[in-house]
Amino acid sequence: MEKITLNVQGMSCGHCVKAIEGSVGELKGVSKVKVNLEDSKVDVEYNASEVSLDTIKETIDDQGYDVQ
Amino acid sequence: MEKITLNVQGMSCGHCVKAIEGSVGELKGVSKVKVNLEDSKVDVEYNASEVSLDTIKETIDDQGYDVQ
Repeated sequence: MEKITLNVQGMSCGHCVKAIEGSVGELKGVSKVKVNLEDSKVDVEYNASEVSLDTIKETIDDQGYDVQ
Repeated sequence: MEKITLNVQGMSCGHCVKAIEGSVGELKGVSKVKVNLEDSKVDVEYNASEVSLDTIKETIDDQGYDVQ
């Protein structure tokens, strides 16, 4: 199990939290995702043999946010 | 047909626009609703014989925003 904290710009409200936690949380191999609005950070726990970090980043990007 | 511009605090992103325009737009008697994020304003055109201003304000409030 891998743990990473991503910096994500553009998250501003509860809808943003739902959009990101919902979409990333649905990915096979992701066991935990938590958005921190104040810090513009997203904590993700995932199994690298099931899902790539690129896929996680793309999923957030697809929701309209800028992953750094 | 009445026209009003409401000051609404807490709208911050595209999801907020959808939440407000969707819910207010579904009210019977509302013919137009437009959110302006930059100005924190919501323009509404409605038929006062079909829907009250209080109902419109309550609908926005129910989405989690502060109508002033």
